[in-house]
Amino acid sequence: MPQTSTPSPLAPKTMPLIAPLEGVRFATGAVGIRYADRPDVMLALLDEGATVAGVFTKSKCPSAPVEWCRAKLKSGKARALLVNSGNANAFTGKAGDQAVKLSAQLLAQAAGVKEKHIFIASTGVIGEPLDANKFQGKLTPLIEQAKPEYWEQAARAIMTTDTFPKLATRKAVISGVEVTLSGFAKGAGMIAPDMATMLAFIFTDAWIDAKVLQILLTNATQGTFNSITVDSDTSTSDSLLFFATGAARARGLEKIDRSRDNNLADFKRALNELMLDLAQQIVKDGEGARKFIEIQINGASTSRSAKKVALSIANSPLVKTAIAGEDANWGRVVMAVGKAGEKADRDRLSIWFGDIRVAHKGLRDPNYNEAEVSQLMQKDLIIIKVDLGIGEGTAKVWTCDLTKEYIAINGDYRS
Amino acid sequence: MPQTSTPSPLAPKTMPLIAPLEGVRFATGAVGIRYADRPDVMLALLDEGATVAGVFTKSKCPSAPVEWCRAKLKSGKARALLVNSGNANAFTGKAGDQAVKLSAQLLAQAAGVKEKHIFIASTGVIGEPLDANKFQGKLTPLIEQAKPEYWEQAARAIMTTDTFPKLATRKAVISGVEVTLSGFAKGAGMIAPDMATMLAFIFTDAWIDAKVLQILLTNATQGTFNSITVDSDTSTSDSLLFFATGAARARGLEKIDRSRDNNLADFKRALNELMLDLAQQIVKDGEGARKFIEIQINGASTSRSAKKVALSIANSPLVKTAIAGEDANWGRVVMAVGKAGEKADRDRLSIWFGDIRVAHKGLRDPNYNEAEVSQLMQKDLIIIKVDLGIGEGTAKVWTCDLTKEYIAINGDYRS
Repeated sequence: MPQTSTPSPLAPKTMPLIAPLEGVRFATGAVGIRYADRPDVMLALLDEGATVAGVFTKSKCPSAPVEWCRAKLKSGKARALLVNSGNANAFTGKAGDQAVKLSAQLLAQAAGVKEKHIFIASTGVIGEPLDANKFQGKLTPLIEQAKPEYWEQAARAIMTTDTFPKLATRKAVISGVEVTLSGFAKGAGMIAPDMATMLAFIFTDAWIDAKVLQILLTNATQGTFNSITVDSDTSTSDSLLFFATGAARARGLEKIDRSRDNNLADFKRALNELMLDLAQQIVKDGEGARKFIEIQINGASTSRSAKKVALSIANSPLVKTAIAGEDANWGRVVMAVGKAGEKADRDRLSIWFGDIRVAHKGLRDPNYNEAEVSQLMQKDLIIIKVDLGIGEGTAKVWTCDLTKEYIAINGDYRS
Repeated sequence: MPQTSTPSPLAPKTMPLIAPLEGVRFATGAVGIRYADRPDVMLALLDEGATVAGVFTKSKCPSAPVEWCRAKLKSGKARALLVNSGNANAFTGKAGDQAVKLSAQLLAQAAGVKEKHIFIASTGVIGEPLDANKFQGKLTPLIEQAKPEYWEQAARAIMTTDTFPKLATRKAVISGVEVTLSGFAKGAGMIAPDMATMLAFIFTDAWIDAKVLQILLTNATQGTFNSITVDSDTSTSDSLLFFATGAARARGLEKIDRSRDNNLADFKRALNELMLDLAQQIVKDGEGARKFIEIQINGASTSRSAKKVALSIANSPLVKTAIAGEDANWGRVVMAVGKAGEKADRDRLSIWFGDIRVAHKGLRDPNYNEAEVSQLMQKDLIIIKVDLGIGEGTAKVWTCDLTKEYIAINGDYRS
């Protein structure tokens, strides 16, 4: 789990500058959880009044911090978030639960807040005991150093196999008041669309009731974090937390307590954009990735069916290796459509790479030019479009290619 | 799809010698379907009276030959099997159906048998039209050369990315009469347990009614060909055909017309062994494979649930790359158990690599010795045992590791 020094070739050319967001401060430090020479702890401190929502892994063997956060979401209030990298505190039994509890106690004491308003996430190796005593005496200095501008440092402190920090920010207007949404995420392997993939933390200064925040987050997850896949593997620790500091009330924003409030339209747009931005950055940092792949399905019997077909293509090792080899091997796309088990009719199926139709109504398109397709396959962004020709269902998912580098990274992760 | 010259390191040390089986003869030839310099056609000729059973891919986009065979199984009779490598005749539209029809017509004419008693299978590239006119004039000489001893040649002629021919033979006794079961298979990539994986052809001289043969074959498929996976991808062409020549009637065998006939016990045992042998050979020739992995699940809520958990582990790229790296990364096994979506309880879960228990009741086993496990991981055969501790469900599946060589093979398959 060492950090790769070379950023992914798909990394964004520029990193967004995130302005301070009223009501939240960050600190990072090296506590020696696993790494000796790099920050491995991130702390976010929220002013009184912040609300929180979350979505978590669907794994039947979730990590201890995931179980903690699920329970603590009930109050809807948050005062601090503690994240460590290097150790996932997953499959650590009762000792793992105790480690989370001790971490929360230490932070509650140091920050002068209630334990139940503390959220915890851990990322790294599974099955190693996490020694929470390492936080002893380390949290007070961190709290003292916390600053609203430390977004990039926070995003870097939670990285594991990530090759670049993933940050995004958007503005939105609610009832004439401008609010900000900013967040960061980490994740590169063990990424599958069963949930808020790996760790992502989003903050806004909007004033939003926790129940409404939860609905907004859950709705936005489906087409963003739940529509990406790197390797079809679902982490035990996936956590997406959304904090609303409410600081915008000072600028005249009234509290939002209905998710169907028409004034939320622009905020929903911004939230969706921000989450898609972070989710796509995770795919672009997919272990060993050299191609970013968008899969568009049209004409499926339902949109649910379309998404299943899209994921069957996105998770197919044969499709992903073909794209790594810059080969427009649409036969493998047919294979993946066929194995999805969803309604399909060979004689109505059409497939495009980019804008070039390579197969039409169950046959190789006689008009396509292999040289043009070859040129297209050399690009960083590959779009595969499939029209099943049987209904109105559509879906879009994002993935990356499968390269030898993925094997190299994962073949000696622990060594 | 060139043949790799170096056999898989997991290839059996010796190839079984298959004795002639009364009632079937084989011929192979180079027809130029795709390759210029190697046999690409295999013909099996069955004496009058042979019965047939088959199971096929569950793909919703099956190949034209699969659709042909499904329809022709109705008569329960078979006189000839024609297989070509180099072209799968899949996603070739109506022209593909016509190519199968023409192939069958040409063979029916040349062999003097009925078209409806001819079975056809194709393996190779998807989406390329198959020119069945290439069989014109080539089948009569093949028929003339057919010999009962050409088992190895037949197994070689159907290879694509396979690095070794896969053959197996067993003896069984039915009501005091000794019968033989022999067969061969091909397949290395696009292997998933949704069905009779890739192509496998089994022959026996037993005298068995076609309906009974079908039941025996279907029952034996579940724990053999449907319990292996190389890369989770399901071919459009998977076909498993089982032919019974009935020649043993000359040695006093009476016709078997009930699948529950107690005299079939030994035959069922032999059939299961033979199919498992061929299925495991396919895994051992998995593209890029260097480790053969057996996954044993115990204590699941049901056996169906156990199999889902087993396949979730067997198809996890992170588990497979860890094993390629000789890393007993049981945390990834926990992850794969968790993502299967089946009933599981972290605090009852135990995991073994070989006979070494590495995790017990939700925790790393404090007694396991990392050095011993490391030594075990260097072997060719890796056994992963998982006890879910909640019920009586069990399952076994077989897979191989995921190596850089898999990417190399599939990243430039068409080029």
